[in-house]
Amino acid sequence: MKKLILVRHGESEWNKMNLFTGWTDVDLTSLGMAEAYLAGRLMKDEGYRPTLCFTSYLKRAVKTLNQILDAMDLDYLPVEKSWRLNEKSYGALQGKNKAETQEKYGKEQLTLWRRSYDVQPPALAADDPRSPRLDPRYNELSDAELPMTEALKDTIARLMPYYEGVILPAFQQHDEILVVAHGNSLRGIVKTLKGMSNEEIIGFNIPTAVPYIFEFDDQLNLQKDFYLGNPEEIQKKIDGVKNQANKK
Amino acid sequence: MKKLILVRHGESEWNKMNLFTGWTDVDLTSLGMAEAYLAGRLMKDEGYRPTLCFTSYLKRAVKTLNQILDAMDLDYLPVEKSWRLNEKSYGALQGKNKAETQEKYGKEQLTLWRRSYDVQPPALAADDPRSPRLDPRYNELSDAELPMTEALKDTIARLMPYYEGVILPAFQQHDEILVVAHGNSLRGIVKTLKGMSNEEIIGFNIPTAVPYIFEFDDQLNLQKDFYLGNPEEIQKKIDGVKNQANKK
Repeated sequence: MKKLILVRHGESEWNKMNLFTGWTDVDLTSLGMAEAYLAGRLMKDEGYRPTLCFTSYLKRAVKTLNQILDAMDLDYLPVEKSWRLNEKSYGALQGKNKAETQEKYGKEQLTLWRRSYDVQPPALAADDPRSPRLDPRYNELSDAELPMTEALKDTIARLMPYYEGVILPAFQQHDEILVVAHGNSLRGIVKTLKGMSNEEIIGFNIPTAVPYIFEFDDQLNLQKDFYLGNPEEIQKKIDGVKNQANKK
Repeated sequence: MKKLILVRHGESEWNKMNLFTGWTDVDLTSLGMAEAYLAGRLMKDEGYRPTLCFTSYLKRAVKTLNQILDAMDLDYLPVEKSWRLNEKSYGALQGKNKAETQEKYGKEQLTLWRRSYDVQPPALAADDPRSPRLDPRYNELSDAELPMTEALKDTIARLMPYYEGVILPAFQQHDEILVVAHGNSLRGIVKTLKGMSNEEIIGFNIPTAVPYIFEFDDQLNLQKDFYLGNPEEIQKKIDGVKNQANKK
């Protein structure tokens, strides 16, 4: 049996402040660090034992993975990092308060930016200090690859070459693979694995720091998928993500 | 100019308890975590900016590196882990108190085990619960590769293929490389770089969590090497390592 474990990073500073984050490299809160550690302990207790890990270029994901590996006593595992696993870019909304943005532009517009499949938020200007072009970690990316804003559709489009070209082929050498990333990059993987429509995936909220297990046969046909942990607590986390725009 | 930065891990639980550690996978103390973070902040303040990192399979090194990267805001950097960067195996001495071992076997014998170039401590038995053969992280290693004990000479012999075959060639793509490892695996690199004799390297003590900088020209000829930080504090750390066997 092959297993893919997806984990969304724990609470970040800007989740807590209810700001649009996207590609902004904000840190985990102490709650986020603890959530991540507990996710690792849960996986260890349930007998999971990945042999290869993937994460993004953003520290909230990297540090979530580090905490998980520490809790599992697997600090030595190989880790591959890729910008293609980064969160969806929120363009010029990055750093703005979600509730204030809703007041300014209206609920309908905000829902389009946050939850439509193919509507992009306003783009960052080329000379905006928030532009990823100014960040040396993205020097390897061409202008065409570097997003100044993204709809979920765009996030999924830049994720797929990595998912199909790097992560899936790694199952030839590995039985259990751990991917720690972000709400929207993980949506891309879930959409593909579960054959969800564009509408289904935008209504699908992944809770923070909850191991999401996909079990496959040896031909990588999906057998079942489930969250690890207490169903009530997981549902509370899912509802929390859904209602962010209304939180002050 | 090319730069190689060597860092020995921060204080571990067993450093503190004065036990022989070797391949035992003990954690950092909270002091060790803080030392590592400060080393990262120092490197950042001094303008260092590695683009590739190497570390061992042992968590005290991995976590030292994670702390450094966090302090430098470089969590996204690629990290390669290898068992060849592990500490020297202390064989059957692992887990024993250094001062008690000195009382039992005498100062001369202990000094041979700790400080000779080619005398191995007693080997672990094949069925010893401390044997690395029982640890799945070393499944990839053949019996011939897997050490049951090591003299410094053996540690250097298994390190060199990695140093020469992986780390040095990486300077073709990178100008600044960070290696976080252990007292004895780092000795191997320092011995080669500075052309030290066997006697010189056994008398050379590398302080914990102090960035040790090697600057090269583009043909990788060594230009100079120096520690980063306050010379008095560094000397205190060096003396601390040297006098461990006498500490109760």
